[in-house]
Amino acid sequence: MAIELYWGSGSPYSWRVMLALEWKKTPYASNMINFSKGEHKAPSFLALNPRGKVPVLKDGDIVLYETLAIMNYLERKQPDPALFGRTATETANVYREVSECFYYFEQPAFEVIAPVFFGGVDEKAAAMKVAAETLHKELSRLEKILTTTNWLVGDKLSAADIWWYPEIMLLERAGAKDVAKPLNLDLGSIAKRYSAIGRWQKRIEAQPGYERTYPPHWKQAA
Amino acid sequence: MAIELYWGSGSPYSWRVMLALEWKKTPYASNMINFSKGEHKAPSFLALNPRGKVPVLKDGDIVLYETLAIMNYLERKQPDPALFGRTATETANVYREVSECFYYFEQPAFEVIAPVFFGGVDEKAAAMKVAAETLHKELSRLEKILTTTNWLVGDKLSAADIWWYPEIMLLERAGAKDVAKPLNLDLGSIAKRYSAIGRWQKRIEAQPGYERTYPPHWKQAA
Repeated sequence: MAIELYWGSGSPYSWRVMLALEWKKTPYASNMINFSKGEHKAPSFLALNPRGKVPVLKDGDIVLYETLAIMNYLERKQPDPALFGRTATETANVYREVSECFYYFEQPAFEVIAPVFFGGVDEKAAAMKVAAETLHKELSRLEKILTTTNWLVGDKLSAADIWWYPEIMLLERAGAKDVAKPLNLDLGSIAKRYSAIGRWQKRIEAQPGYERTYPPHWKQAA
Repeated sequence: MAIELYWGSGSPYSWRVMLALEWKKTPYASNMINFSKGEHKAPSFLALNPRGKVPVLKDGDIVLYETLAIMNYLERKQPDPALFGRTATETANVYREVSECFYYFEQPAFEVIAPVFFGGVDEKAAAMKVAAETLHKELSRLEKILTTTNWLVGDKLSAADIWWYPEIMLLERAGAKDVAKPLNLDLGSIAKRYSAIGRWQKRIEAQPGYERTYPPHWKQAA
């Protein structure tokens, strides 16, 4: 039975799993959950994930949620090509990058992204500027790494790249919105300020199957 | 060369790595970092981890930080006994629990813990009460699981238990402090309200080497 993926357009978590599936060349049936129709709160979806969050992966009777859980499931089911490193040190460094994104980037990114998409930019401008400073510090760290290497860990794409990429894309999209412009957060074009990150984005975008993972409503809006 | 661990007393992240080392029966040299003396900001420590955070693990020339990175390194170096599951589904469920702890529990736990230990309980009382409601919802979910099983995932201790346990212990310690009592958060004795979690705590505390992982300054204070 084919793997089924429940995902949402523009969800960085969903995007990570889709990139992982493409990297592993794992075929899957796609079920897009429409947030604006409340499909993530429908009883049939809550039966899969009581938290009502995407992504959810179904493999026969096995139902999994939480991105890191799904990515590790795919890795255990099909170790090659590896997502989580090929040596103990590579594995550790992949999880270090995943953790650094989670602990130091996702929260300040949310503080910029949420007001742009859900309202409140005027009231939250000061906090958004503070968050942007943190984000630039973290992006500078990545820029430094990617100045000398093609991928965040090791010499191939890994879960580290897959973890960071959709978060940066979503942040960039928020930073480029008209409502964010007066704040001068300088997050609307990552490649302009961070050229090595820009080249790394292009490398990810050149991966086979990438276009299947791109959020459909972003295409329409572009 | 022996593994060296840099850790801090009462840091749940450090505690997780120490429990993992004991579970794997991996010998290690212990370097306690004294936060109150600012040792985590000393140049010699920042050379190991530029973020100035514990835990840090050193294995010869390899220096690792971020808890999940270290735990995965230990798993790759010595797969048995497994920390991250023995089948693809177990592995996924371990990472699901780890993810559920960090996405849904660590932040509200911090909102209760930080004012208790660092001040501000009066001003933050309302937010602490909201956070406590979320925490009780999450604890109830764990209680339900542990009513029918000994361990959070599978039939042995795993990284899921090791991830949750120190966070719950720290929360309980905060909840039991005099300054928290007037708020009636009911977090000062987890076992009293959640008997299955209480029995699970005892099972973890009965593991060989557990006493070596217990925060030394908690012993002194007790």
